[in-house]
Amino acid sequence: MQTPASFLGSCRKKLEPFNKYEPYNSTYEQIWKNLIKNEIDSFFYIGGNDSMDTVLNLSKFLNFVAPNQFNVIGIPKTIDNDLQVTDHCPGFASAAKFVATTFLELERDCKVYKKPAVTIVEVMGRDAGWLTAASGLSRLNGGTGPNLIYCCERKFSLNEFLNDVETELSCNSNEGILISVSEGVTIDNETIDRTNQMNYFDEFGHKQKSGVAQYLQKIVANQIKCKTRSLELSLLQRSASHLASQVDLNEAFNIGRFAVEKGYVEKLTGKMTTIERIQNQPYLIKFGTVDVELVANKVKKIPSDMLPEKPDINNELISYLEPLIQGQPNIVYENGLPVHLNLNSLI
Amino acid sequence: MQTPASFLGSCRKKLEPFNKYEPYNSTYEQIWKNLIKNEIDSFFYIGGNDSMDTVLNLSKFLNFVAPNQFNVIGIPKTIDNDLQVTDHCPGFASAAKFVATTFLELERDCKVYKKPAVTIVEVMGRDAGWLTAASGLSRLNGGTGPNLIYCCERKFSLNEFLNDVETELSCNSNEGILISVSEGVTIDNETIDRTNQMNYFDEFGHKQKSGVAQYLQKIVANQIKCKTRSLELSLLQRSASHLASQVDLNEAFNIGRFAVEKGYVEKLTGKMTTIERIQNQPYLIKFGTVDVELVANKVKKIPSDMLPEKPDINNELISYLEPLIQGQPNIVYENGLPVHLNLNSLI
Repeated sequence: MQTPASFLGSCRKKLEPFNKYEPYNSTYEQIWKNLIKNEIDSFFYIGGNDSMDTVLNLSKFLNFVAPNQFNVIGIPKTIDNDLQVTDHCPGFASAAKFVATTFLELERDCKVYKKPAVTIVEVMGRDAGWLTAASGLSRLNGGTGPNLIYCCERKFSLNEFLNDVETELSCNSNEGILISVSEGVTIDNETIDRTNQMNYFDEFGHKQKSGVAQYLQKIVANQIKCKTRSLELSLLQRSASHLASQVDLNEAFNIGRFAVEKGYVEKLTGKMTTIERIQNQPYLIKFGTVDVELVANKVKKIPSDMLPEKPDINNELISYLEPLIQGQPNIVYENGLPVHLNLNSLI
Repeated sequence: MQTPASFLGSCRKKLEPFNKYEPYNSTYEQIWKNLIKNEIDSFFYIGGNDSMDTVLNLSKFLNFVAPNQFNVIGIPKTIDNDLQVTDHCPGFASAAKFVATTFLELERDCKVYKKPAVTIVEVMGRDAGWLTAASGLSRLNGGTGPNLIYCCERKFSLNEFLNDVETELSCNSNEGILISVSEGVTIDNETIDRTNQMNYFDEFGHKQKSGVAQYLQKIVANQIKCKTRSLELSLLQRSASHLASQVDLNEAFNIGRFAVEKGYVEKLTGKMTTIERIQNQPYLIKFGTVDVELVANKVKKIPSDMLPEKPDINNELISYLEPLIQGQPNIVYENGLPVHLNLNSLI
């Protein structure tokens, strides 16, 4: 018969990234002990595809050591929006609203001068370009939006990129052009030496890919000889709560409540809650659940029929994105700044 | 007697940067001709210390070629807030509100993990650290703010910086720390080779100094060996109209109206309009004018009595900044995004 230790041993490979900063064989056992000690039977884990792998393994582990006693439920949350099965992920819509608003505002800065200039903006998304695509939403209110949108699902050729930039500059009478690019773009199948990129790894062992915009900027400056700038939306796109989408906030709250129903009340385990879109106009969704193994460690990229041949997004993708960024929460301001809730002050 | 051409010749050195992209000796003459052609007698120029140099020279030129016929008035506008005489500059307060809000939000991202990490954020300000100082306003609503604030008025020693970072990491039990730094910081009197910096020049011939945060990040990563990140607020801090300060918007509108009174109505020329702060609580200002030569090409740095010895800001600086970021304008949203006014649609 398998012991808890040997079970953990068989999971070792999968668990390793999770345990990079903690002794490997104690993590799940410690969670188990803490659940018993605190008389907790339901465990909710909020996150992306790595977190869903944790949900998968923890639910397997707990089911092995104490069958039918614990309920482990994953709740999707990632600005990358790259979880399988669910229509979209809480958190994404607010980040998308920030990205779209920011591109709308950058247009005011980058396209007003009668001089050729190229501004390249790097948007988060290691494996999927959903958030980069949201830069195109800046066109909804009459803006021209980014001239070029490079989601990481597209094959990226440096020569084609330089041609695109030159074409856009000449089509726009050598005025400024604005470009959005996914941080995860693979340039010429990554044969280029990305010396500008930071070589550090996140807590799940993924190489951080930031630096694409700066890399491209240097090439444009060198080849096209005009003013070039690069910027990264960096942490701001996942932190800007003052620009949250009300649709997102409602869904985030309600999918949490739904998870409690499924885990704590109905005693499901090894599931992730999902959002299913029923219709776009008016926008209507319902929640569901899925076996978390169908989500863990998988990536949902933008489907090819949502991306046109040129570096841009199409109407289908806009229709998918638009309902998500609707509604502005009533942000409370004091001293000229948003008030953040301090959970410690509530205890 | 001096001719227009010889007058321009005598100004040549001063005018040169302005004329970098246009034939030197035609600019002011062309403005003059256009004013006559369009029956315009009042010229308002909005900008920073370079723009005030233009106001100075244009007013001199017009007064030379057509005495008492034209009124040239400068109106301050710079997020750098570095114009002499005026208490502060329209535009700065909104950028300061964006910077303070962003640091408040970055704190949620950077200080929540129980792991040592250093996040270095570069804030605009080539010659003055006002906007960097505004990062400290994030403490107004109970936040801890940046652990370290390096305005460019401070002498910046790399060794002291590394000591500061290590001290902050150990004081905060090796949790994440957040640092703000002016783009214009001079590291060890600039003896360091800033190979990461972009070597391009703006339209006034100033070398762009972006890249300090990334430069420092690499050194911290190398010397202190913990997770490090750098980001630049870049164009966002001067574009984020959705986070404008209502105080700033009111002052911007009213100082424009005041300038029209002084130029078009009272026929003053060679002046810049100013804001004079009468008191802080309640905040009260009045407008005035100053000879533009007292402002042109000069820089108002943060006075030394507003900066403590450690890399931080003091209460006096907070009292100066706080009234400026008050009030939120009623931003109109459509399709989930702010609506921008299109001047072309009004014509």
